[in-house]
This record gives sequence, C-alpha cells and structure tokens, in this order.
Amino acid sequence: MPETKIKKNEDFNEWYNEIVELAELCDKRYPIKGMNVWRPYGWKLMNHVDRLIRDEMEKTSHHEVYFPLLIPESLFKKEEEHIEGFGSEVYWITHAGENELEERWLLRPTSETAMYPVFSLWIRSHADLPLKTFQIVNTFRYETKQTRAFIRVREIHFFEAHTCHEDFKDAEKQIEEDKAIANRLFKRLCLPFIFSKRPDWDKFAGAFYTISIDVLMPSWRTLQLGSIHQYRDNFSKPYGISYETEDGKHTYVHQTTYGMSERILGALVGIHSDNKGLVIPPAVAPTQVIIIPVIFKGKEEKVLELCDMICKKLMDEDVRVVADKRDITPGSKYYDWELKGVPLRVEIGPKDIEKKQIVLVRRDTGKKKAVSQESAVKTIKEELVTISKNLCDNAKKFLDENMHRVHSIEEAKDKKGIVELPWCKSEDCALEIENILDGNTIGEPIEDVECKDYSCPLCGKTAETWMRYAKTY
Amino acid sequence: MPETKIKKNEDFNEWYNEIVELAELCDKRYPIKGMNVWRPYGWKLMNHVDRLIRDEMEKTSHHEVYFPLLIPESLFKKEEEHIEGFGSEVYWITHAGENELEERWLLRPTSETAMYPVFSLWIRSHADLPLKTFQIVNTFRYETKQTRAFIRVREIHFFEAHTCHEDFKDAEKQIEEDKAIANRLFKRLCLPFIFSKRPDWDKFAGAFYTISIDVLMPSWRTLQLGSIHQYRDNFSKPYGISYETEDGKHTYVHQTTYGMSERILGALVGIHSDNKGLVIPPAVAPTQVIIIPVIFKGKEEKVLELCDMICKKLMDEDVRVVADKRDITPGSKYYDWELKGVPLRVEIGPKDIEKKQIVLVRRDTGKKKAVSQESAVKTIKEELVTISKNLCDNAKKFLDENMHRVHSIEEAKDKKGIVELPWCKSEDCALEIENILDGNTIGEPIEDVECKDYSCPLCGKTAETWMRYAKTY
Repeated sequence: MPETKIKKNEDFNEWYNEIVELAELCDKRYPIKGMNVWRPYGWKLMNHVDRLIRDEMEKTSHHEVYFPLLIPESLFKKEEEHIEGFGSEVYWITHAGENELEERWLLRPTSETAMYPVFSLWIRSHADLPLKTFQIVNTFRYETKQTRAFIRVREIHFFEAHTCHEDFKDAEKQIEEDKAIANRLFKRLCLPFIFSKRPDWDKFAGAFYTISIDVLMPSWRTLQLGSIHQYRDNFSKPYGISYETEDGKHTYVHQTTYGMSERILGALVGIHSDNKGLVIPPAVAPTQVIIIPVIFKGKEEKVLELCDMICKKLMDEDVRVVADKRDITPGSKYYDWELKGVPLRVEIGPKDIEKKQIVLVRRDTGKKKAVSQESAVKTIKEELVTISKNLCDNAKKFLDENMHRVHSIEEAKDKKGIVELPWCKSEDCALEIENILDGNTIGEPIEDVECKDYSCPLCGKTAETWMRYAKTY
Repeated sequence: MPETKIKKNEDFNEWYNEIVELAELCDKRYPIKGMNVWRPYGWKLMNHVDRLIRDEMEKTSHHEVYFPLLIPESLFKKEEEHIEGFGSEVYWITHAGENELEERWLLRPTSETAMYPVFSLWIRSHADLPLKTFQIVNTFRYETKQTRAFIRVREIHFFEAHTCHEDFKDAEKQIEEDKAIANRLFKRLCLPFIFSKRPDWDKFAGAFYTISIDVLMPSWRTLQLGSIHQYRDNFSKPYGISYETEDGKHTYVHQTTYGMSERILGALVGIHSDNKGLVIPPAVAPTQVIIIPVIFKGKEEKVLELCDMICKKLMDEDVRVVADKRDITPGSKYYDWELKGVPLRVEIGPKDIEKKQIVLVRRDTGKKKAVSQESAVKTIKEELVTISKNLCDNAKKFLDENMHRVHSIEEAKDKKGIVELPWCKSEDCALEIENILDGNTIGEPIEDVECKDYSCPLCGKTAETWMRYAKTY
C-alpha cells in the first residue's frame, strides 16, 4: 500500500507539508507566500467544519453578518492598544486605479474596528442587548515567520463572534457559553484541548483577558486553535457603544469575542492522519462511508445491486456515503479513499453475497470485520461512533501523557509537550523560564489551579497559580 | 398598515434605497462608500440564493475552490486586454506593516489572473479535462459612479465559474449548459430575463464573446445579473494552460466563465417587493411560512397547540416555517413579517379551532383563504407553488409589455423599457442610436434573430440582426 515519502513519526513537520498537498487539500504554488489555493477537497472539509460552527451559533442565538473587508485607517486607530498590537501586521491599500486614496485603508486582520462603529448605531437601549453576532470571513496578516498550510498563513479563513452586553457579569456569562461551545465543537472534531488564561503581556491587543484554546500536535508543539476574549468596556468607550438603561442613564456595553481559524483543519490533519493519508473524524468527513464493489472480472449484477441498496439505506439515515463504481481495480480505490481519510470502507464481493454479509474496514485502525447484511446500516452507524471515540481517545491519551505538572525547572527540562510549573505571577520569572526552557508561556489553567504548597522555581516566592510552557507553532 | 414613506410607483429608486434598509438587509452607514454591512436578514437571503447556485453547480459537476484574494501585478498584466479593461478599477496594496512591497498586489476584481497560472499546473493531459470549478467570493471594483445597495457596490459578493476544455466545440457545449443553469435558476427566483450577445466593444475584457443575463427593473432600466463568456484560447495562451492530446501533441485549452453577483438580490427586492416591504420567492425565503396565533386576551392552549402541530408537520415536509409566539399583538407580527417578505402567513384563532380550519394569507396578493385543518399541509405547499408562479407571471408580463421590436428610431423614442431595432452590425450606427435614445446597447438576441426584411434605421443598409437598447443600471 503506497505511503507518504516522509514518515509522520520521523519528521512530523515535513510529513505534514507533504500530506496537505498529497491529499489535495491545498496548492502551495500560488506566487504569494502564505496565500494558498484551497482545492475542492480541502475547501469541502473546511466547509464541514464551518457547518459545525454555524450549528453551534444557531443553537446559541448568534446572528451571522458580513462586514466589509476594508477598514479606514482612522477607524482602526481609535483603540490604542489594538493598533499597537496589529499595526505592523496589516496590509495597506493606498491606491484605487490611478488615484491615491485620501485616507489609507487596511485589510481586516480581525473586525473589531470595522464592526464597532456600526454597533454604536445599532445599540440604543437595553432592549437591543445582548447583541450576538458572528461572521466567517478571510482575514489578512503580514506573517514574517515561516508559513505553513492552515497553521501559519497570510490569508486566514476565520470565524469571529462579537457580542455586546449590559454589564461585565452578562459578558462573563457569554464566556461561559463560549467555553461550552468549544467543549461541544472540539469533541465532535475529536480534538482534546486545554483552556489557558493568557498572561497579561500576551493577551489580545485591547482585551481585558484572553482564554486560549490549544491542542498538542504530534511534534509536541502546541497549536492555538482559538481564543475567547473579555473586552470589558475597552472598545465600547473609544467606539461609543452605549445604551440607555431602564432608568434613563447612558452606559457603555461590555463586549466579548470568540475567534477560531483554519488552524482547526491543521489540527485535524496533524493529529489524526497517518502515512497512508488523512483520517477524518466522521462529523466532518465529506464522505463518511465509501462502498467498494470487489469485482475483478466483468460486472456482477448482484454485487452492484447490493452496493446500491446499502448506499440508499445509508443516505436515508443521513450518512454521507458514496458507492465507487469506477472502472479501476478495488486496490486503486482503497488507495484513493484512504488518502482522502474516509472513516469507514464497505467492501462487497461475490462471496459476501453468498454469505449474506458485507465487510467493514476502519480507516483509523485498518481492522476488518464481516457483518450480516441485515444489520449493516445499524452496525455502520455504530462503527462511525466507535471510530470517533477512538480518535478522541488516542488524541486524549497523547495529550495526557504529555502534560506534566512539575515543581522544578530541572524536572521541566526533561519533558516533551506541555509543562506546568508553580508561578509567582511575576512577568520576569515567567519570561526567564521561557528562555531557560526554550518554550513559550501558554497561560494559566482556568480550573484546578490550587498550588499554594509550592513556590516559584525561579524566585522562590509562594506560587499563586501554575504557568504552562510549551514549544508552540 | 404601515408602508414605506416613498412609494414604489412614484420614485422607484428612492423606494429601493428605503426598503433595503427598512427590511434590514444591509446598513449603508459604513464609512467607505459602496461597502455596506450585510445585516443578518440580508446575509441569510443571499445565502439562500448561493445555495441554489451551489445546487446547480453540484448537479453539473463543478467543484468549489477558493483562490487567494490578492494578485501580484505581474500576473495580472499577462493578458493585455484584461488589464486594459480592469486597470482603472482595481485597488492596490503597496505596503505590509511598515514595509513597502517589492511588487504591488491588487484585490481581485475577478479571478482569471489568480486562477490561470495554477490551472496551468493542474492540467497536463486530456484526462484532466474538462476542468470545471467555481467559487463564491467577494470581489472589489473601484466604482466611480453613484453606488446603490446590491446593484452598484465596491465590495461585490460574486459567483464565478471557470472551466477548461479540449477545444472550442467542447467549450461551446459548456455555454449551452450555462444557459440551462440560468433558465433553471432564475425560474426558481421568479426572475424572467433575456440573454443578449454583447457587441464586441462591450464584451468582457479578454473574451471572444460575452452573453449577458439582464432583467428589466420596475424603473424600466435593465439590470445585468450575470454573464457567460467564451474565452477561446485568449487566456490559455498567455497563462500557458496546455495539455497533451492522445496523440502526443501539446495544445492550448479553450475556456469559459460564468459570473453572477449580489445584483440577483437587488433584482429580487426591486422586482417583487411592494410598499409594505419585501416579497420573497418561496425558493429563497429564509422563512417560507409564518404561523401566527391570533389571541388577544391571555393564552389559549388549543390555539398554541394547533400552531405547534401545523409547524411540526410543515417542518417534516421541509418547509421553512416559524411559529411566532412573541408576546406582542398579532397586528405587530403581521407588520414585521410582511416587511420581511414571508410568502405565506397562517393565522390561527379560537374561531378557527371551532371551525376546524386555519386561515392562509398570501404576501403577494394579500388574499385570505380559510382551509380545513385536515388538508392544511397539502394546501400550504400548493399555495407556495402558486405564489411562485404568480410572481413569475407578473414579472414576465412586465418584461413582455416593455420589450418592443420596432423598425424606426421614431417608434423607439416613444417606448419605455427595451427596444430592438434592426442593425447593420456597424459600431458607429449602434453608438449613434445609443446617443439618440439616451440609452445603452444591451446586445443582440441569441435566438429569433431573423430580420433580413428590414434595414438599419440609421444608415439604411440591410439589417443583419437586431440590436437591443435600454437605459441600464
């Protein structure tokens, strides 16, 4: 069976670079670095992820909007920290046709500064609150580091939810909802993750606090898939988003945002796939079940009939299924669909007709299993659940085995993955430990933070919480 | 019943400007002219139109892709006519952060020049053909004329299909398929249209020929909703898209494109709606049926139960239905949903329970009709078909009444809408007639072109075909 030239366990990063093109997710030959072409299969897969996100937004009464891509410089500059954080990363439009623009416009790196002047027009009274919106758009950041498909790109497929609330407390409730959304979503994607509260010096530009959503990649580096931000009234003041309370006073709204990106696809590919190709969780697999008639010489009516019948029955149960009747060998078909990561393969040959059975082959384990034709649909649906669970379990096992709560820098040095060390809350100590470990601060855990029995391994002061360190993408 | 301040039959253009905001389709207060905010209802409606387009693409084996927004200047300039046609309309990126780019990049006005260098890598042999792709993206054009929501904007929600074929003949077949797609699509949108072959001086920059899809708006101006282009090998030569034939020769592909835009939404609003608000064809209505319990004093269990039951039954039949149980008067609900253009309203009150009936109110005609509860679902589905047909018929009647095939300029001057005059095929004659009529050439009909008994009304030579003239958006 053909495999990738580079093996996943030998050189993860190069294997990743190979597989995203081999599986035809994207084409990296577009002549602007970090701006890749989404090929049909990659785009379809991304759309299935977007669909899960939209389902969650629908469930939680967020409304989808679309704000313009271009932002006038003057709007962008209203919140000082924000411009400081993003100023060096934006692309500037200076000319339209032959004419120089009176004011420069930038391509959105994120949409706060496009949305909030308009929110200030939409929100008048407490009856307009909460305002819960989201959009799925492309954003643009001038990356100077090495680019990598889906993980570090300059045109980013991006989800951003923006909400406005009466007060801090209501905004905090939103953040609880956001966390619940992440729990549901990443479970369906079979991607175990950790929430970390970013240190102040590393939070989103303009935020009051930032909670990051990180997964651990097989290279033992963390990959940030999303973040949830509490803005308090940091943006609503400069952008004038205020409302009249029931007793007639004017007050500024409190805001939150929730961002996720195509990095989710990077994590799906990196965490679940293998040397034969992609392994896609059933929830987002464009094709969940592939049915392959195993006929070598000529057509066999009964085999094809059964393929069609099983296919139809699965469709009726909302399974995304294809019967591959192309005129090539079954082996070539296995190869194609394994590369594309279809979770479950059904093989049906003349012998299976005799035995009133069909054969199921799992993409995640390669295991074969004959099941009766009678119970086929039920078993297939159960197998998809089992595959999903197995992908989750494997990824969770890897994450758990590579999260280390230790107490000294010496212990930390030995560990691959994520280490947690007692932390005194001083920026200097954390940055020094970053240096020593040649890693990055990820942030504090948001639960299970008890550590008063320990002291900061650098300064020796009593620790207030834990700080996580890891090599990151 | 509240109505728009400006009446549709008194000042169509101002009525249009009012209604797109009143129905909360878009917000025009974003500080860049011609770049509007898509509000949730407008975006949802646009997405339903996109869904119909995607269904057609799926049926005809087109694959969805996404190409980068930004195009390096050197790529853009490879096809000379193209750059001449678009050069004055593009936005230029010159800086990233503080750095000046080595080469300027532009925002796609359309994606030929982004896609074709990559197509040249994808296509190697005849086995790779035909290549049928499409994308739904935003494009950018520096409009200097007066902007108008959905009709003339600077950030354009855009559909573009791009195909590559072995030869001219196969590309011509694609154009036949494209025309069939337009026929199916615009029928579902209840938008009767005309195909016209654009005169050479007005075709797409780089095309061999262009067929436009135009509708007639109630202002008697035509609005171009889309176009189908035959490129021959005009682009494949400069971009090097060639393939090896079965007998080993290398030859350039022939290409077609198909473009449509958010103008479809402009046409939907302009053609079907009235002074009470939108009237949306059932095929794209985000809500097709609204159920309103008519209870003025307190709750009446039986009414609400019946509302829920009808709602559930309709959902089971894939009707997009909402039961509006908000605690406001039925009248306020009627107002809201009429403004939003929901095709059919169901009213259920205590009397209807007694009479074992429900009341249907059509948005297009305002007509009421009591129907038995037993046949409710069947009747509602039939009514949606009737409404769709009525919207089509009304628009077709208006188009037919305002298409005039005449033989002299004097006759043409009297006519509102579209006039067809015999044409000798000379550019000078057509442009002079444009001037006299204060209109634009739309193009030749692509069918029913027989006109050899007539002569050009300007130069007197025997006519070869008809030329259409109209005021345009």
